[in-house]
Amino acid sequence: MIDLRSDTVTKPTQKMRKAIFEATVGDDVYGEDPTINKLEELAADMLGKENALFVTSGTQGNQLAVLANCSPGDEIVVESESHIFFYEGAAISALAGVQPRVVSGQNGEMKPLDVRNAIRSQDIHFPDTSLICLENTHNRSGGSIVSFDNMKAIYDIAQTASIPVHIDGARLFNAVVASHKKAADYTQYCDSVQICLSKGLGSPVGSILAGNKQMIQKARKWRKRLGGGLRQAGILGASGIISLTEMVDRLQEDHVKALRLADAIENMEGISLVNKPETNIVIVNIEKTHKSNEEFLEELKKKGVLAVSFGEGLIRFTTHYDVDSNDIEQAIDIISKVV
Amino acid sequence: MIDLRSDTVTKPTQKMRKAIFEATVGDDVYGEDPTINKLEELAADMLGKENALFVTSGTQGNQLAVLANCSPGDEIVVESESHIFFYEGAAISALAGVQPRVVSGQNGEMKPLDVRNAIRSQDIHFPDTSLICLENTHNRSGGSIVSFDNMKAIYDIAQTASIPVHIDGARLFNAVVASHKKAADYTQYCDSVQICLSKGLGSPVGSILAGNKQMIQKARKWRKRLGGGLRQAGILGASGIISLTEMVDRLQEDHVKALRLADAIENMEGISLVNKPETNIVIVNIEKTHKSNEEFLEELKKKGVLAVSFGEGLIRFTTHYDVDSNDIEQAIDIISKVV
Amino acid sequence: MIDLRSDTVTKPTQKMRKAIFEATVGDDVYGEDPTINKLEELAADMLGKENALFVTSGTQGNQLAVLANCSPGDEIVVESESHIFFYEGAAISALAGVQPRVVSGQNGEMKPLDVRNAIRSQDIHFPDTSLICLENTHNRSGGSIVSFDNMKAIYDIAQTASIPVHIDGARLFNAVVASHKKAADYTQYCDSVQICLSKGLGSPVGSILAGNKQMIQKARKWRKRLGGGLRQAGILGASGIISLTEMVDRLQEDHVKALRLADAIENMEGISLVNKPETNIVIVNIEKTHKSNEEFLEELKKKGVLAVSFGEGLIRFTTHYDVDSNDIEQAIDIISKVV
Amino acid sequence: MIDLRSDTVTKPTQKMRKAIFEATVGDDVYGEDPTINKLEELAADMLGKENALFVTSGTQGNQLAVLANCSPGDEIVVESESHIFFYEGAAISALAGVQPRVVSGQNGEMKPLDVRNAIRSQDIHFPDTSLICLENTHNRSGGSIVSFDNMKAIYDIAQTASIPVHIDGARLFNAVVASHKKAADYTQYCDSVQICLSKGLGSPVGSILAGNKQMIQKARKWRKRLGGGLRQAGILGASGIISLTEMVDRLQEDHVKALRLADAIENMEGISLVNKPETNIVIVNIEKTHKSNEEFLEELKKKGVLAVSFGEGLIRFTTHYDVDSNDIEQAIDIISKVV
Repeated sequence: MIDLRSDTVTKPTQKMRKAIFEATVGDDVYGEDPTINKLEELAADMLGKENALFVTSGTQGNQLAVLANCSPGDEIVVESESHIFFYEGAAISALAGVQPRVVSGQNGEMKPLDVRNAIRSQDIHFPDTSLICLENTHNRSGGSIVSFDNMKAIYDIAQTASIPVHIDGARLFNAVVASHKKAADYTQYCDSVQICLSKGLGSPVGSILAGNKQMIQKARKWRKRLGGGLRQAGILGASGIISLTEMVDRLQEDHVKALRLADAIENMEGISLVNKPETNIVIVNIEKTHKSNEEFLEELKKKGVLAVSFGEGLIRFTTHYDVDSNDIEQAIDIISKVV
Repeated sequence: MIDLRSDTVTKPTQKMRKAIFEATVGDDVYGEDPTINKLEELAADMLGKENALFVTSGTQGNQLAVLANCSPGDEIVVESESHIFFYEGAAISALAGVQPRVVSGQNGEMKPLDVRNAIRSQDIHFPDTSLICLENTHNRSGGSIVSFDNMKAIYDIAQTASIPVHIDGARLFNAVVASHKKAADYTQYCDSVQICLSKGLGSPVGSILAGNKQMIQKARKWRKRLGGGLRQAGILGASGIISLTEMVDRLQEDHVKALRLADAIENMEGISLVNKPETNIVIVNIEKTHKSNEEFLEELKKKGVLAVSFGEGLIRFTTHYDVDSNDIEQAIDIISKVV
Repeated sequence: MIDLRSDTVTKPTQKMRKAIFEATVGDDVYGEDPTINKLEELAADMLGKENALFVTSGTQGNQLAVLANCSPGDEIVVESESHIFFYEGAAISALAGVQPRVVSGQNGEMKPLDVRNAIRSQDIHFPDTSLICLENTHNRSGGSIVSFDNMKAIYDIAQTASIPVHIDGARLFNAVVASHKKAADYTQYCDSVQICLSKGLGSPVGSILAGNKQMIQKARKWRKRLGGGLRQAGILGASGIISLTEMVDRLQEDHVKALRLADAIENMEGISLVNKPETNIVIVNIEKTHKSNEEFLEELKKKGVLAVSFGEGLIRFTTHYDVDSNDIEQAIDIISKVV
Repeated sequence: MIDLRSDTVTKPTQKMRKAIFEATVGDDVYGEDPTINKLEELAADMLGKENALFVTSGTQGNQLAVLANCSPGDEIVVESESHIFFYEGAAISALAGVQPRVVSGQNGEMKPLDVRNAIRSQDIHFPDTSLICLENTHNRSGGSIVSFDNMKAIYDIAQTASIPVHIDGARLFNAVVASHKKAADYTQYCDSVQICLSKGLGSPVGSILAGNKQMIQKARKWRKRLGGGLRQAGILGASGIISLTEMVDRLQEDHVKALRLADAIENMEGISLVNKPETNIVIVNIEKTHKSNEEFLEELKKKGVLAVSFGEGLIRFTTHYDVDSNDIEQAIDIISKVV
């Protein structure tokens, strides 16, 4: 089975397993896990932030950023199809009591003017705007990269308004690698950032939230309330260190595979590309096949390919470490047969 | 000063003051205020619902509908410029922990298909959709009336999905009067409705939430938590009864005044009508005057007219009981001078 | 029927009705109701605080104090039978997300040492303590007065720990009158205070929250979210002014009536006084009558007296403006017959 | 250094590391991690419940039980020094919006009558009581065992009132082993239970929440919101399986060590036992040494023993897998020197 549902399905590499096996650990609630401490320092350094915090998922990292920056009754500006709004079970409202103000983006980029207009003025009827969230790469627009220009323009607006910016960078390193930049080039335009050690970076579990000391301190306390304060967390941290030190450059291969898949699909009749993949996600419109998503996915599955529904008439394929070029060629063959 | 800022500025009529003076009252927390009981029965009857609850404001009525229908982590479908989303301080998220899913409407009407698409499917990443909110008349599109067809189509979708519909009918009676229908003709397409006794109906304080018995019972308990459980509330209820029995038909006059104002503005150079008023709200675009909203409003005020800013380059005028035809003519004269 | 259930059942006096009838009003959401503005200034002055805010109930005033002072995940110190913990539907947790830390008091007074021990130290497992609440007079211990010494000792502890103190003074003026002091003598030992204009002060609806400017500003915004932002609120404010200026000294009469009732009960066989009333509340133990609360109250009611259940085997009688000395004598007669 | 601060400091055994190294994993958000599925089935079976859910900590398991059983504005009955109230950062109020109603216990046991009295009756002023929480063994009373009789009596009351019972069984297996019973003997008296795979059972990370299918389904969705939905969670699950299958009986050794430590301390002058340890926790009163907790702990640390402060004048020692009999003898020697 060629699993193109998500890069979250990647299994830990042998090297990761070995690092986990040998990991030096301690009680991280007491701040005594040396592996976690090392990972957090490494991550803070790579992301150009004062402090970093290991969390159990991207969702937890995003939610902690909201909890640490906002008060109930605030409003936060989010892209209309961003993960934090679309895929986190309304947790921003359930946990932090904040209301999302959505701005529709193009390829994941919100227009700076729209962001500025979305910021509330002082009025007893209005919530205070207390956070602006970006997502880079942007999942629902097909792993597209939010450009420096866009980020800078929004960050300028945010700073003028004294509002912090958070990046959901679950796949930030895909953008980093695709653009031949450093993570810190991106994160200079934000106050906090969340990145995933799983997904393309291959770790079984874990994400990082980075930001200034005071924010991370608040996030650490909220992490405890959410039940994310772990004991010998180094078991997970050991793999996270490999993700950050050895798995980043490798993401380029996933992008090559996605491009190959996209090129092949572009030439198939009956289905069409929604996006020219900039990173590792390919979204395909299957409406002309007159098959429902369920039927289409079922036929793919029978022949050995897994993908996911991504809205009416849309299917998402994601490349990652656990599918190689041969798998992609085989997947192309199967998709063309189903079409 | 001719105050066209809002119909909320209306002062109680002499008759209302007299009714208040003479009101029979009791302790409404014990359910013993006869005037409130009478008002709630009257309102439930007019709105075609099982039960009604007196609340201190439209915001309180809307929030109670959300609190009584939803659980934290749910999502509710709201029009993108609806009062419940735009003007209530993010209270739906702060109090009920629910996330708004906005759908952009035209003249206050959301397309039924958009509403259907906004309802979430079952997925561990998704919130449950637990309420659909309409606003009729729709304030930010200029007091426009949401049509029966639109309401019916959305209500059908909601019923198919087993999701209740709430109407923010702060100005529902303006729609009722303008369309020569009954309130119950509108409220047949919803499970709960909030209407204001203040605004065009002239009472100093108070709104009504109506719905089925079980929902109102929950709302009553939440009202207590919000501090809306009053003692001798009949002091306010006495006026509310007059609003419902004697002030409804009168709203037609406000519509005539708004139309007269709109016609006059249409003929002025430099400013333009945003909407042809269907009820009592006139929105005017002043961009071509090259004056800021603040400047424009200040000049109006100096000459004796009050209005409010309604977004960049937009000014709202609202007609009501406390401005008569002469006031409108005078206002027209002043506006034309400022332009 | 002699209604001794609560002082909340008092009906507005003729003078109040007249003041309401004649009240000058405006739109208080715009801050333009002169009667409310006057009331708020008067209340702030009497309570020795910078600002005051009219609210629709004691519960709303208390909740706003919590919302304005605390963040979710905080803990507040409250007496174990205080109204804010016992009678407000868990609203402190539902609305503000804070956890009560209860301290058992004696006659409504918490031991200062217990309060100090209840304040949390810094620890990732612990909430921050962000408010200490007193209640004076204390309802569930029979309207007992929390002494200056006790208040001062607790306030000193609070100030040392940089934690604000809130007084639920729903019946603070009963303490004021009984002790021949001024309200400000009490409120010097707190940062915020809530007092009720209804209850013994006779207004149909309304309470006051007073505190420093910044706190009241926050509370004002939260009041809007709770739906407590009213329009022509002066209708209620007019009566509130009379409560503060003309009804305070009168409370002494209620205390005399309570004492008379208590003395009589003390001499009855089969029931006993729980407290020697310091103000207007008399709590009676009826266990020896071998009647359930429901039976006892039913028998009283049949003969013309209303009271309320106050926990197993306990009945509460409350004196107020609408029962006079004759009523009390008659009530004594009826109670003795039931016993 | 002999670390007696907590059983949470235990490091994974070599066998656990090997099992982790070899673990078969999948994406648990898709329900495809075979190791987690196996662990959850095993745990549900041992705990006599329909379903089980892997969570990242005891706090997360407890909070999910509250979130799955309660609505905002509810009240839950908890022991006054229980972990869920005392050590979880007020998360029950911050996340679920519920208010704790504390009942003081003796050796961790609440009197059934007190529990019954703490359940609220129907009244608009009262929250609904929606959960009763027990803790077994009870940490703050020194790892004491809540007896079957006590659990049964409380469970009977709960069932009569139709209120579910949750057990915080972070150290339930200590009770199981000490009493020579099965876990299911205890869990028959509850609707849901949380047990820790870390602590005495040695796993680096992880706990289990067990209950009926519907509750676990709700908890699973809330776990996602809290960021506890993990990907290849089998890395942690592999160790958890060893905890449940091979580490339970071993707890007896910890109890022997605790008893040995307690006996020795009993004979020391200047300090005294607070509890006769029933399991693995020893609480010691050091007041007569006239040293502060900080001084006492610092002196111990200098000589090679770690313990924790447990309230004014109280020190807690906890035995676990990573301290053996020799360590205990050495610790006794050091403690006696410090005393």
